[in-house]
Amino acid sequence: MTYNPVELILKKREGHELSASEIDFFIQNFVKGEIPDYQMSAMLMCIFFKGASSEEISALTGSYIKSGKSIQFPADLPVADKHSTGGVGDKLSLMLAPISAALGLYVPMISGRGLGHTGGTLDKLEAIPGFRTEYEIDEFKELVLKHGYALVGQSEELVPADKMIYALRDVTASVESPALITASVMSKKIAEGAKYLVIDLKIGSGAFMPDIHKARELAQHLKATGESFGQKVKIVFTNMNSPLGHAVGNALETIEAIEFLKGNTQPDNYEITLMLVSQMLILSGFASSLEEAKEMFDRVIADGSALKEFEKIIRIQGGNPEVICDYSLFPTAKYESPIIAEKSGYIHEIDSRKIGYSLVRIKAGRMKTSDSLDYSSGAILPKKIGDEIKAGESLGKVLSNDQALGDEVARMIAASYLILPEKKEKESLILEIL
Amino acid sequence: MTYNPVELILKKREGHELSASEIDFFIQNFVKGEIPDYQMSAMLMCIFFKGASSEEISALTGSYIKSGKSIQFPADLPVADKHSTGGVGDKLSLMLAPISAALGLYVPMISGRGLGHTGGTLDKLEAIPGFRTEYEIDEFKELVLKHGYALVGQSEELVPADKMIYALRDVTASVESPALITASVMSKKIAEGAKYLVIDLKIGSGAFMPDIHKARELAQHLKATGESFGQKVKIVFTNMNSPLGHAVGNALETIEAIEFLKGNTQPDNYEITLMLVSQMLILSGFASSLEEAKEMFDRVIADGSALKEFEKIIRIQGGNPEVICDYSLFPTAKYESPIIAEKSGYIHEIDSRKIGYSLVRIKAGRMKTSDSLDYSSGAILPKKIGDEIKAGESLGKVLSNDQALGDEVARMIAASYLILPEKKEKESLILEIL
Repeated sequence: MTYNPVELILKKREGHELSASEIDFFIQNFVKGEIPDYQMSAMLMCIFFKGASSEEISALTGSYIKSGKSIQFPADLPVADKHSTGGVGDKLSLMLAPISAALGLYVPMISGRGLGHTGGTLDKLEAIPGFRTEYEIDEFKELVLKHGYALVGQSEELVPADKMIYALRDVTASVESPALITASVMSKKIAEGAKYLVIDLKIGSGAFMPDIHKARELAQHLKATGESFGQKVKIVFTNMNSPLGHAVGNALETIEAIEFLKGNTQPDNYEITLMLVSQMLILSGFASSLEEAKEMFDRVIADGSALKEFEKIIRIQGGNPEVICDYSLFPTAKYESPIIAEKSGYIHEIDSRKIGYSLVRIKAGRMKTSDSLDYSSGAILPKKIGDEIKAGESLGKVLSNDQALGDEVARMIAASYLILPEKKEKESLILEIL
Repeated sequence: MTYNPVELILKKREGHELSASEIDFFIQNFVKGEIPDYQMSAMLMCIFFKGASSEEISALTGSYIKSGKSIQFPADLPVADKHSTGGVGDKLSLMLAPISAALGLYVPMISGRGLGHTGGTLDKLEAIPGFRTEYEIDEFKELVLKHGYALVGQSEELVPADKMIYALRDVTASVESPALITASVMSKKIAEGAKYLVIDLKIGSGAFMPDIHKARELAQHLKATGESFGQKVKIVFTNMNSPLGHAVGNALETIEAIEFLKGNTQPDNYEITLMLVSQMLILSGFASSLEEAKEMFDRVIADGSALKEFEKIIRIQGGNPEVICDYSLFPTAKYESPIIAEKSGYIHEIDSRKIGYSLVRIKAGRMKTSDSLDYSSGAILPKKIGDEIKAGESLGKVLSNDQALGDEVARMIAASYLILPEKKEKESLILEIL
């Protein structure tokens, strides 16, 4: 079928539903260059304002997938994955993937890079000297089949429509659309062949979603779309008001993940990773209850098999596996800048987004995809909302290769903590499960 | 000032008001090619959905004007013009301009071409052999100063931003925005130097505006914008349910206009042209009442001075002035196809839009700006809403150069009349004045 692109934009603009055939026409012709950027950006803005039905989002997701190659695993293989909407200090994938693999799940994990205030799994992995993240799709599939999992970046062959449309949304202010976010996330997770998918939907000051109402709308779309492709999907809403764990910064977070696999866990990292892995195990039929899942989870940490899985994948993907034992093999920052509490009292709020952005200044993160990173820089932030602190005491430290800039970032981070005299309750980490 | 275009789109998307400086940055950089089409189309769609304040529309209009040259007439010169939102059979400019000039007004009339179901003044003028409509701005200004008026097309030098943005709106489904329509119309009418402006805002089946509520919103914007540039503006809401006058088609309408100037007027052409000219005379202080204006109007028709003005401008703009006396000098259609009433009764509705579109088939109009025209083809449609008719009697005739196609168009036009047994009142032609 051929259509008039202007009439399709008009139809969406007036709030009418587009058919699967109309959506596919628009997407495939855009990828082929037959529909110009300016018509696509008008269409995206109409979807932003008018939203899209479940059927439209499914059709859009299907068209994204159809624009490239996708992976089919054998029908009986328990292929599971996790997606996170991104936060500050979120290194959970680095623990979750080897733990899941140690428990017999197959995890075809395709990750992204950090942008703005949030970090990216790929950047954390590349802090490991030699670690390779670029693989062709067929090679990636082989890795997963042979080794149980792999940790790679998105290949050009996989859902090219998403890559092109995401780049356009980024420069035309149409990123924050639940319909477009859903198609973008789910197309990749379906094309990579995941049958069981757990989504860590982060809410709070350090997340893209500031409140739970918007998050619930997005969650419904994500779940309905996965299910329309035969996927089993669970959404875990998690609290992203405090940065996760202690470390923020690429090498620092990878080291924290290795420590986790050695059994030295932080409570928040532990609680959320456990919940995400447990949901993967329950979805795939590997566990029948959260209790059973917890036993399995604790066992592969205690017996070292999860750590061994991580060591294995580092070696297989070209990294130096000795980093597991010798952290001095990671890039190391020259300077430390203490972060000093300005007041005495209890921590009521942490502006995690501001922390993320301030760390961009010492290249722990980036503002543009073309910005370079300093893998060694970052911060150690052990204090959480509800903790008591005295003026002049340490809230943590900044690690950098520029003392003056590090000191400035330390002051900016100190100013991100709201300290009040009255007590503040600890916040729940798991907010809701859908 | 420089701004981030993405942030400006985001600001408008969220319904915040853009400053004059932000709007001007966006428009001038778009015209220079610094802001790409896809960002402009996203911005236009945000304006479509979120609207714009009076201040924003004024700023947008000012930026359009600033993108090109504009005309300044001497301060004491009574420069007046009319704009019409376009309809079927609307040849009023051809009468209004010479009548106004005969009464001493200066009329810098810049007109457009027909598109879709509506005709355009330029096409009607070009039915006159030799008539030239392309002039540089300086030459156009000289014509108006020397001869009191001129009838030309839009020069490339005048508001190029509007031309570029209109072309983009056309292919990205953002035409129907009161804010964008206002900036487009008013920028041209301000840049051409009109001090007194009457707008014929047509409402009904043959107009772009189907209902009066949308029209009132647009009217407020048009008036406020003109006034913000020191213009005096009157809006006349006119009925466009029946095609205007008898003739639809380029040469046919020009002949009807000449007949009008000879005193052979149709009631609807007369009533609306009189009202528009009267408002121009009152705005400019030439008349103090509708009665006085009517006397002046009737006088320049009766004494032949308006006809003489038209003959003069035809000669000056390179046309053959003998068309005034000898209509055989116009392109003439070979075939007539009668339009036969299918039922007896009273005409309740006329689908003028459908009539306009059906006449495109015999090239009396065009669907794309690149389509060629047959100046000779069209229709004579003397029956109006409220008229009585018997089955088998004539509703009018189609004139074409293809008998079979002409017959088909005649049948399509016959089907555009809703004839019911019960009586139907005649409709008012002037609906409201603002």
